[in-house]
Amino acid sequence: MAARLLEVYLDLLSQPCRAIHILLGCTNIPHTVRTVALRKGENRTPEFTKLNPMQKVPVMVDNGFVLTESDAIMKYLATRYDVPQHWYPRQPERRARVDEYTAWHHTNTRPHAARVFLLEVLVPQQTGSPVDEGRLVRALSQLEETLDRLEAMFLRRQPFLCGDDITVADLLAVCELMQPEMSGRDVLQQRPALQRWRSRVQAAVGEAFHRAHAVLYAVRDRRAAKL
Amino acid sequence: MAARLLEVYLDLLSQPCRAIHILLGCTNIPHTVRTVALRKGENRTPEFTKLNPMQKVPVMVDNGFVLTESDAIMKYLATRYDVPQHWYPRQPERRARVDEYTAWHHTNTRPHAARVFLLEVLVPQQTGSPVDEGRLVRALSQLEETLDRLEAMFLRRQPFLCGDDITVADLLAVCELMQPEMSGRDVLQQRPALQRWRSRVQAAVGEAFHRAHAVLYAVRDRRAAKL
Repeated sequence: MAARLLEVYLDLLSQPCRAIHILLGCTNIPHTVRTVALRKGENRTPEFTKLNPMQKVPVMVDNGFVLTESDAIMKYLATRYDVPQHWYPRQPERRARVDEYTAWHHTNTRPHAARVFLLEVLVPQQTGSPVDEGRLVRALSQLEETLDRLEAMFLRRQPFLCGDDITVADLLAVCELMQPEMSGRDVLQQRPALQRWRSRVQAAVGEAFHRAHAVLYAVRDRRAAKL
Repeated sequence: MAARLLEVYLDLLSQPCRAIHILLGCTNIPHTVRTVALRKGENRTPEFTKLNPMQKVPVMVDNGFVLTESDAIMKYLATRYDVPQHWYPRQPERRARVDEYTAWHHTNTRPHAARVFLLEVLVPQQTGSPVDEGRLVRALSQLEETLDRLEAMFLRRQPFLCGDDITVADLLAVCELMQPEMSGRDVLQQRPALQRWRSRVQAAVGEAFHRAHAVLYAVRDRRAAKL
């Protein structure tokens, strides 16, 4: 087989981009990362808009095949490349569990964790206004409901979100829940069961976790030093 | 193979439930529909809560395997049962297109069309208040953006959302866009390209489309008669 050329356009400050970065890192799929700095508007250049008219990251280009949407990209990579089966199992019931979580993720984990980050980091940074405490309290309470469900439903009887082994679902979820760390907030602080899950995910992916989060840690530490 | 027992718990006034109903109807998968009337709170009974602690429809039970989330259910059915390949293609690039649309759907077509229905039908019905016109105008404008993207991106060069043939993505989308019909609003009225797509979807699934929408039409006609 001729060498494939796989490129991913990512900003590691974006949660779904980090999930893809971790998957690529710990499965050793040969690839090239093209950085698209959202804060510099690099997603709105004519070249990038041609690649993705939605002007969003992540984007994957695999031998000319352009794909958007993090969960579609991860499932495609796990199918197309020779990665361990557990990432996206072929057995229909096990695969359905991953599809079930990723669908749920889009209207729960993702918006609720992202909103905390938005209110605590992004909005104050872009407007210069202080954090809107009332809205933050409501956002945190919605996030708590999502965390309750992650614990009581998805992780009730199993070590990972979709079964006995790590899948792409765990990567999407953990990266989302890491996002509020940008302001030094650990949303799992009062959640020992979810902390243990996060540790299992970190142990399963090794150094890839910290490589994907290095930029986020740097932003967090710079913010903390300023305060 | 022993006969499988496939049950689906649906309320046909719910968009994603109709998508599953159409898929089952036009692929002739043997199944039993269990109706869960949301307006009567049948999703909050102890029995149903035991089946799905999220208290949501649709739910599928296939020989004891319980699955939630419409897109996961449709992908599972298309994989597990002997249905024509085009519904959820096996070829990785074609499958990735379906996964890409369904991921996008959750944060675009679904919330934007549902919000119009919510403001125009559900809220006035539950509160007795008139339609909040300001919020409705904003919701309609967000929906227009989604419709622009469906036309300009997904349907730009192809007859169906993910390629040359119908997939589960088209069913999810069309059922969502039919929801505002409940108040007599055709959101595609000014959209000839999307109307042609809807006609192609209807032609591809035949009578299954109208069987799934019969309850919605009845509610619409009853509302119109009252005005």
